[in-house]
Amino acid sequence: MQNKKVAIVMGSDSDLAAMQGAIATLKKFGVEATVHVMSAHRTPEQACAFSKNARENGYGAIIAAAGKAAHLAGVLAAHTTLPVIGVPIKSSTLDGLDALLSTVQMPKGVPVATVAIDGADNAALLAVQILGVSDAALADKLAAYKAEMEQGVLAADKAVQEKLKNL
Amino acid sequence: MQNKKVAIVMGSDSDLAAMQGAIATLKKFGVEATVHVMSAHRTPEQACAFSKNARENGYGAIIAAAGKAAHLAGVLAAHTTLPVIGVPIKSSTLDGLDALLSTVQMPKGVPVATVAIDGADNAALLAVQILGVSDAALADKLAAYKAEMEQGVLAADKAVQEKLKNL
Amino acid sequence: MQNKKVAIVMGSDSDLAAMQGAIATLKKFGVEATVHVMSAHRTPEQACAFSKNARENGYGAIIAAAGKAAHLAGVLAAHTTLPVIGVPIKSSTLDGLDALLSTVQMPKGVPVATVAIDGADNAALLAVQILGVSDAALADKLAAYKAEMEQGVLAADKAVQEKLKNL
Amino acid sequence: MQNKKVAIVMGSDSDLAAMQGAIATLKKFGVEATVHVMSAHRTPEQACAFSKNARENGYGAIIAAAGKAAHLAGVLAAHTTLPVIGVPIKSSTLDGLDALLSTVQMPKGVPVATVAIDGADNAALLAVQILGVSDAALADKLAAYKAEMEQGVLAADKAVQEKLKNL
Amino acid sequence: MQNKKVAIVMGSDSDLAAMQGAIATLKKFGVEATVHVMSAHRTPEQACAFSKNARENGYGAIIAAAGKAAHLAGVLAAHTTLPVIGVPIKSSTLDGLDALLSTVQMPKGVPVATVAIDGADNAALLAVQILGVSDAALADKLAAYKAEMEQGVLAADKAVQEKLKNL
Amino acid sequence: MQNKKVAIVMGSDSDLAAMQGAIATLKKFGVEATVHVMSAHRTPEQACAFSKNARENGYGAIIAAAGKAAHLAGVLAAHTTLPVIGVPIKSSTLDGLDALLSTVQMPKGVPVATVAIDGADNAALLAVQILGVSDAALADKLAAYKAEMEQGVLAADKAVQEKLKNL
Amino acid sequence: MQNKKVAIVMGSDSDLAAMQGAIATLKKFGVEATVHVMSAHRTPEQACAFSKNARENGYGAIIAAAGKAAHLAGVLAAHTTLPVIGVPIKSSTLDGLDALLSTVQMPKGVPVATVAIDGADNAALLAVQILGVSDAALADKLAAYKAEMEQGVLAADKAVQEKLKNL
Amino acid sequence: MQNKKVAIVMGSDSDLAAMQGAIATLKKFGVEATVHVMSAHRTPEQACAFSKNARENGYGAIIAAAGKAAHLAGVLAAHTTLPVIGVPIKSSTLDGLDALLSTVQMPKGVPVATVAIDGADNAALLAVQILGVSDAALADKLAAYKAEMEQGVLAADKAVQEKLKNL
Repeated sequence: MQNKKVAIVMGSDSDLAAMQGAIATLKKFGVEATVHVMSAHRTPEQACAFSKNARENGYGAIIAAAGKAAHLAGVLAAHTTLPVIGVPIKSSTLDGLDALLSTVQMPKGVPVATVAIDGADNAALLAVQILGVSDAALADKLAAYKAEMEQGVLAADKAVQEKLKNL
Repeated sequence: MQNKKVAIVMGSDSDLAAMQGAIATLKKFGVEATVHVMSAHRTPEQACAFSKNARENGYGAIIAAAGKAAHLAGVLAAHTTLPVIGVPIKSSTLDGLDALLSTVQMPKGVPVATVAIDGADNAALLAVQILGVSDAALADKLAAYKAEMEQGVLAADKAVQEKLKNL
Repeated sequence: MQNKKVAIVMGSDSDLAAMQGAIATLKKFGVEATVHVMSAHRTPEQACAFSKNARENGYGAIIAAAGKAAHLAGVLAAHTTLPVIGVPIKSSTLDGLDALLSTVQMPKGVPVATVAIDGADNAALLAVQILGVSDAALADKLAAYKAEMEQGVLAADKAVQEKLKNL
Repeated sequence: MQNKKVAIVMGSDSDLAAMQGAIATLKKFGVEATVHVMSAHRTPEQACAFSKNARENGYGAIIAAAGKAAHLAGVLAAHTTLPVIGVPIKSSTLDGLDALLSTVQMPKGVPVATVAIDGADNAALLAVQILGVSDAALADKLAAYKAEMEQGVLAADKAVQEKLKNL
Repeated sequence: MQNKKVAIVMGSDSDLAAMQGAIATLKKFGVEATVHVMSAHRTPEQACAFSKNARENGYGAIIAAAGKAAHLAGVLAAHTTLPVIGVPIKSSTLDGLDALLSTVQMPKGVPVATVAIDGADNAALLAVQILGVSDAALADKLAAYKAEMEQGVLAADKAVQEKLKNL
Repeated sequence: MQNKKVAIVMGSDSDLAAMQGAIATLKKFGVEATVHVMSAHRTPEQACAFSKNARENGYGAIIAAAGKAAHLAGVLAAHTTLPVIGVPIKSSTLDGLDALLSTVQMPKGVPVATVAIDGADNAALLAVQILGVSDAALADKLAAYKAEMEQGVLAADKAVQEKLKNL
Repeated sequence: MQNKKVAIVMGSDSDLAAMQGAIATLKKFGVEATVHVMSAHRTPEQACAFSKNARENGYGAIIAAAGKAAHLAGVLAAHTTLPVIGVPIKSSTLDGLDALLSTVQMPKGVPVATVAIDGADNAALLAVQILGVSDAALADKLAAYKAEMEQGVLAADKAVQEKLKNL
Repeated sequence: MQNKKVAIVMGSDSDLAAMQGAIATLKKFGVEATVHVMSAHRTPEQACAFSKNARENGYGAIIAAAGKAAHLAGVLAAHTTLPVIGVPIKSSTLDGLDALLSTVQMPKGVPVATVAIDGADNAALLAVQILGVSDAALADKLAAYKAEMEQGVLAADKAVQEKLKNL
């Protein structure tokens, strides 16, 4: 078990479904994760306090997921020197473009490492990569994951060939 | 002089030029204004404290101007029950669309009254309208301003007629 | 009961469902609201007359909801010095972007306080904030609402922790 | 001289430069034109009155040019049964997309015949086509104009061939 | 019965459902309409020939509906001096934005009178307005239609008031 | 010299500057090119005739460049079974997005091989690749071009290293 | 049977449904096709090797289909001098705009022949056109296909006339 | 001096100016950086080899900057388990939106940590944050940098107050 934790923070409990992939991915890599509902706008003080104390509380990265005018990742990043990973969540209008721009277009001095809209799995993988920079065991697991993905695509390729032969 | 002040808060001193129209407009209406540089990401505590105390410090509305992932208005709105007016500022890419969406697409519970991209004058006018809801003198000045605008357009119309006649 | 009313004006009765949140929110705050179907294009005279007389008829703010080339808020704003709050409504194409730009990009002199696409609840909250600038009782209710939201998020956070523990 | 006039209405005298092509085109076709500065938001009553009386004042079409949240064409169309032609004007942000959507996305019942962003020449041509539906002389002029355009392109083609030969 | 016909041309028979409103509207106004499936890309010669002969075949306007890279209206406009009305049709991607830009952004010299995405009804109304420029009976019907729309909105307003009273 | 020619067709002689890279690239590969100004809307008959006869006139591909509602490539593609390569040209508004969508979003049955906005060089390269499918000498030149590009990047890399060393 | 094959490469087996039209179209024209699942990111080496050897393995064109940040076509194009045809696939957000821009906006030197979002049929047709440049039999089949499309539209036109007569 | 290096890779030497801020920022934090020009499309093999060996060559993160269809970051990420930070570069069309979507919308399994368009400084800061997860000295420098930024804003605030007083 890596000794740094990863925090998954979401702006609303309605984002939980969208973030299950992140929870599962961190588990798969044996990285301890905690999951929180905190809002940049409705519980700003809890969010800021959490972020301010994250490093000393043993976190190595924070994943923040929010939709619409998604300020959560940026607000957390304002209070920590840990890497903050932003997951823009698609909501009922604008197909996630609002959340993407609100997350990625951060001003100079306070970066947010943004992944694809609804990209929870990749947010977790990025967190693992970050922890893996100085953790050889995690790096090995990531290499194994990459090999596994490769095998998956090769198998899919084979299956498609098979399927089309039977047409 | 209206007894409530309006705060103009900008994310960077580079926004000052873009906000001069707001300062001038508030002055024109005799509304006391204070101007501040505060950042949602670089001085979040000052920004939050300012917002939290704005009502008891005599403010009636807050105008917040920021570009890119413009979180400033939303972050201020999280800490006050005063109306917060957001001015999305156009920056070097995306023509202000990022700031517009970051400002206007606020989640349920924490509205930001958003005006046009680079719409500093209108932000100030909206602040005056807000104070004017319960201030008959300001309401009269707003009516006079509307009449003045109307005269301006009528004069422009006359000037265009004149100009085209001479072609 | 606050002594200023809020008008909710929608461009079509098909917008009623989208605006229920505004009606409920105003009710919750004890703010008297009237609801009207008026069109900038199909009943322009009624709309203009309504707006022109809104202040003396006891209104403190007007909420205007419309979709597509959403001119309603702007047209109402042309005839009053009250704050006009625009709610862009998503329709069958363009995901509300057309209504957003038609509502928010108002020219100098005639602001519309624009909220998120389909942001009826926030439009009502903004109206309450506007009335609350000079109404201490409403301001207190807004503070209570903020506290209630905070409790809601804290409870959701607790529920998520609980739920994940059982996985 | 065709006996119906065309009105060119612009939201601001700053649009005059952008509309010179329309004025010149109508002149070229011998169609009488009048040019007006009227604003949907700053002189709504003049605009509405103008539109309401346009048909009986001898107009056959109205060209309306405006930028940003361009409501002018729609507002004029609300008050007349004449065809209203909308010219979205590019302003300092969003490259004219706001004006285009505000002009073209009109709700059912009140169409605006929209041309390209900054498409003043085409607005005038469309007005001439509209008058030419029942005016054989204008139709002949339009056919001549088409032939002239064709000759222009053929000449440009020849010139390019010549130029490249000399390289 | 007006003595000029209106042609409704669509790029694919799959557009028929989207254009029913145009057919019904023209019928309502007693304007003779013909409906055609013609493609700028798959039957370009038929389309060009139709357009070239439209005026002498008694048409007063052409409505062209197409989706995606919607060239149909522009291609028809290239071959006639009649007004061509373009209806951008929403297809499976991009929400109609592609068809809108392909229809409205016509180069100088060949305008297309563009209406809203999927705006078939308005295309027909615009055609009626065009014919009505020189047809007093049609103009009267358009005025009646406007009055009817107004009554519709007033009735909807009354119905909403009624409905809310019962809540 | 390859025995099939490539046609460069542009909608306006103002596109000539943007297309110089295509002319130069074809020359570099020893592919004969002809350059034409033809308009889908102003000289549709010449454009269609050119396209219809292109194969028997010895062309192997057609490059079509146009801006705004760029119909040229699609209209040419309607009349030939040769590959048509579309180059969307950026014009004064919308940054080329209109031309891109008008060129690439072709309906089923009539493809246009679209390259980047203002991508004249790549259009020519694609034409060379197309001719090179069955022309070993051209294929060799393309391989040499790729090697040359690679050397160019390696040299640029070296130059940057050198430059930074001296800082 | 044409002696050059066409490769259909897709980034994921979930794209198979979207690509069935390409498979069927190539079959219809008697062009041999192979179908592969290869990923620019998960099996980059297989993808690069496939592309590098495609010409000598008898391919005349490569069709690459991918969604989101669709790098597949560009990555394949980096390793071959054959024409690479890109099919942007619509995924769960942004309606295919991300895949379109990632595919079409290739830098100078490495073109991708991009077709419409989800335009699998047209990708195959374009491949056939490319092979048909130097293959008279394929060119004849393409001409027959064009004639067949024309008949299809004429029949649809007749059917619509018939249908409307019965209304 | 931190013992892990950061690689700055750019797709073209024309991106060097845009990346100077990253070079300076890494220097300021005492993080060793190397700068490379490598292209996903023109030197794919060098790029892949560099990425594949980056970890064992002592790198802790890779910053990749590219414009248009910006595949560089994704292609590098395909070959390493290190975190790859993508900087979308604005080019002559589309204002950087193409590069942003091409960089951020990565498919599952291969994340790219994307920063703002032209956000070179933030890319470097994010790299420092990543190295700082397990490097207390760097974490302290980051905290000092945050404090310095805060002081900068406070000073700007003071300067603005001063300046406005003198008006």
